[in-house]
Amino acid sequence: MRLTPRLQQLLSALRCLPGVGPKSAQRIAFHLLDRDRDGAETLVGALRDALDGIGLCEQCRMFAEAAQCPICADPKRESGQICVVETPADVIAVDESGAYRGLFFVLMGRLSPLDGIGPDELGVSLLEKRLRDGVCHELILATSATVEGEATAAYLAGIAGRAGIRATRIAHGVPMGGELEFVDSNTLSLALTARTAMDG
Amino acid sequence: MRLTPRLQQLLSALRCLPGVGPKSAQRIAFHLLDRDRDGAETLVGALRDALDGIGLCEQCRMFAEAAQCPICADPKRESGQICVVETPADVIAVDESGAYRGLFFVLMGRLSPLDGIGPDELGVSLLEKRLRDGVCHELILATSATVEGEATAAYLAGIAGRAGIRATRIAHGVPMGGELEFVDSNTLSLALTARTAMDG
Repeated sequence: MRLTPRLQQLLSALRCLPGVGPKSAQRIAFHLLDRDRDGAETLVGALRDALDGIGLCEQCRMFAEAAQCPICADPKRESGQICVVETPADVIAVDESGAYRGLFFVLMGRLSPLDGIGPDELGVSLLEKRLRDGVCHELILATSATVEGEATAAYLAGIAGRAGIRATRIAHGVPMGGELEFVDSNTLSLALTARTAMDG
Repeated sequence: MRLTPRLQQLLSALRCLPGVGPKSAQRIAFHLLDRDRDGAETLVGALRDALDGIGLCEQCRMFAEAAQCPICADPKRESGQICVVETPADVIAVDESGAYRGLFFVLMGRLSPLDGIGPDELGVSLLEKRLRDGVCHELILATSATVEGEATAAYLAGIAGRAGIRATRIAHGVPMGGELEFVDSNTLSLALTARTAMDG
């Protein structure tokens, strides 16, 4: 059947949400129109506010509503450490681990020449400037443990080296609570190579 | 970490989408803000237009942008048949089957006294009025094959009977392409009871 134009338009606009295909778009649209018009009103307002008011932090490229994000603006953070991550979600994950009190730098991606993502797209010049500001003494590379994430880490370690800054990489190994049986062989091989001494 | 207020507000607004919890809300928000701001702009516009311009058809309660939905307004439809369904999605499913050219009536739910959903919530008086308009001669009950759907169908069949209109129920049985092995025993028992003669 031919749907009405506004419904058609809504269904195609909902496809911008990650993982939403034609069937889910219909389910979402009908749910909102039929059962949750108030929720949809709130969503329109919240999206409008977010689009107008959320930009990137001028220092670390995390989402921010002012020139700097709350972390960069927090004088209690350890400003000598910069942890490089790929996405804003990674910032939240690292911060919630509670093991890190330094600053961040968000690449918003990783090196991927085939997709046209090079150092410029990742804001590397901004990071380089921070490495040479005299405050930073350690660059922690927390990019993902994929081929592209490793390549990005290696590239940034080179830049840190030339700036005279120590670069470190987060450890790879068996996750906590992970049964060896279900850990893939690459991870296991890494975990064996990186084994550490135990006090007897 | 404390998220900025607008981000917080967006995350909680996204929870109005069906099946979206805190993790998905974050994934959606970051995806839109980081990678698809144009899509988010389009979505805001489309939602705004849909909320302002989509209501319910005065005759069948399907979504409509005018007083009547495209189906009710189509003079080529067989106006003597009314197919009762639970949701707008069911209208689309029945219509796309290609086996039905009549009109619809959308309950927007099913009888469920425990949830406070009675005949008034389902617009039954509107349906009764249509049954008595002298045009309708068959009420096809296409509510779902659940306990509540069956109860709703039985209730509406009673109303049709009192109005002197023939009520029919869509057939239940083994779905096309269904292996008997994987069909549940209730369906199989129904399919056996409702068996039909084959020409030899």
